[in-house]
Amino acid sequence: MSCVGVDIGGTNTKLVRIEDGEDPVARHEVATPREVEAYEHTLAGAVAAVARGGSPIEAVGFSVAGLVDERRTIVQAPNLPFFEGVDVAAPLRQRDPEPALVVENDVNAAIVGEQEWGAGRGCRDLCMLSLGTGVGGGVIVGGRLQRGSHGLAGELGHIVLDHDGPLCTCGLPGHVESYLSTAAIVERGRRALREAGDRGAILRRHVDREGEASPRVLAEAAREGCPVARDVLAASGRWLGLACANLTHTLQPDRILVGGGVSQAGELLLEPAREEYEARLMRAVRGSVPIVRAELGVDGAAIGAAVLARRILDERPA
Amino acid sequence: MSCVGVDIGGTNTKLVRIEDGEDPVARHEVATPREVEAYEHTLAGAVAAVARGGSPIEAVGFSVAGLVDERRTIVQAPNLPFFEGVDVAAPLRQRDPEPALVVENDVNAAIVGEQEWGAGRGCRDLCMLSLGTGVGGGVIVGGRLQRGSHGLAGELGHIVLDHDGPLCTCGLPGHVESYLSTAAIVERGRRALREAGDRGAILRRHVDREGEASPRVLAEAAREGCPVARDVLAASGRWLGLACANLTHTLQPDRILVGGGVSQAGELLLEPAREEYEARLMRAVRGSVPIVRAELGVDGAAIGAAVLARRILDERPA
Repeated sequence: MSCVGVDIGGTNTKLVRIEDGEDPVARHEVATPREVEAYEHTLAGAVAAVARGGSPIEAVGFSVAGLVDERRTIVQAPNLPFFEGVDVAAPLRQRDPEPALVVENDVNAAIVGEQEWGAGRGCRDLCMLSLGTGVGGGVIVGGRLQRGSHGLAGELGHIVLDHDGPLCTCGLPGHVESYLSTAAIVERGRRALREAGDRGAILRRHVDREGEASPRVLAEAAREGCPVARDVLAASGRWLGLACANLTHTLQPDRILVGGGVSQAGELLLEPAREEYEARLMRAVRGSVPIVRAELGVDGAAIGAAVLARRILDERPA
Repeated sequence: MSCVGVDIGGTNTKLVRIEDGEDPVARHEVATPREVEAYEHTLAGAVAAVARGGSPIEAVGFSVAGLVDERRTIVQAPNLPFFEGVDVAAPLRQRDPEPALVVENDVNAAIVGEQEWGAGRGCRDLCMLSLGTGVGGGVIVGGRLQRGSHGLAGELGHIVLDHDGPLCTCGLPGHVESYLSTAAIVERGRRALREAGDRGAILRRHVDREGEASPRVLAEAAREGCPVARDVLAASGRWLGLACANLTHTLQPDRILVGGGVSQAGELLLEPAREEYEARLMRAVRGSVPIVRAELGVDGAAIGAAVLARRILDERPA
């Protein structure tokens, strides 16, 4: 049995194929088409490419950077507006035999990937925050991905940390995303640099070359010893720690995973996050739930989508 | 089969007995003893009283206003300090035959009671906030009470609404409890009255008679038309709405239940809560999860404790 995961991202679409009981065996990547007709054509070719040399495809899972409701429709996708309202699995529905199909939000898919092959192995209860252009989330309880009553559980980027805080891209104030998206961190870096004087020399040199204080640039400057870059990542980490404390007071999962591009700053982000996190937990809860970096990186969502597809087959009555 | 629930509260201890397939059939109430030896004696008498006329007791569930960890030990109980570290089920362990025993946090018990006989009937995913001396919480996912990896999930009173807000009784800033406990509301009423002038005449008359602007006093004054009392309850409701938005973005349950003494203010609290709540939800999530008042009132925790006890029997291998 072979299952394919298709992760439709704002820039690239990644595919993986998994075979029964093996680690993911094939990967393929294409530019995400910008309109629906091109998408159908591209999808067919990409699925054929990733399927080559494997057993017949029995199930395909799609992962999308957007809100996917209980009817598996994409109801909101700021980075993929041409996919809103579209059934991304449609081009595969005419196949004979029709594969099992599922559509899922990308971080919901990613947390399932981590549960199966990554930092969440062996965990029954997991939360994940994915820090990138937006801040996505996923929740697993009792081993199962939680979709909520209408498919929209796990929107952990939209938890309030300050009722009166800066506006989120969704238009509401003080959400996790408004402190921890790439744009929020870039802006934090810009402000810090403006006030830094000579302390910011290393970071300034990087920013002059790269254009902005992206999380990657901040991490590079911090590793070269720049105290300002280090402070900006630490301040970001403290917001992350606060967000994680809310998750632990709500669900006390086995672990909280942190993924997404911003997480590449690694311990520069996670160490201050853990410190703030433990300080923000009630005494009796401290030390009970570790914050761990996700392991599968950019492939996580595609892998998770393939796993979700396989689970449909596993759960079908024999 | 008969099961008993024992809800050990800061002031009174309530017991209920449930018989197979029937509504709760017997109730009993005693003052909560202030030390452990008196407790053992009182418990024996109270269990005998509630058992009278029923079938033999096969299981007993205890509900406690405090944190109960994964070993069912009371690790923190500000209103029952003499019970910290105590196994409240111990006096029943020597019985022959020994009943099935379980110890649970009071709001965890209450949400199970609501799921079985109250405002949560038919729901698989539920959250509950109980507003009283403290603010407790409970979470049910997939039909099952969530205890978390170490027994301390559902501490929804300790979710942050403002990273820099007023101190909670647990010592940390900006928690739900610091805006919605009885004491927080009394203080909000006191401040409002100080600035109210003639607008506060009705509330002031009540407070002069009763001593403080308790939620009950505020509700009475509001019902008599006092705009200041109404404003104080509305402001409290808005904090409640914000807290509920965080729960829906995390879990999107079927419903959110609001219980505890403060909830007796009813629509004076819940209507502004719902308005703020919907405004605080992302567009795609609006209208999906109602906020509903709990139905079982002060008996909810005892009933839920009895249900939890019965579930142990139900899940035992035959």
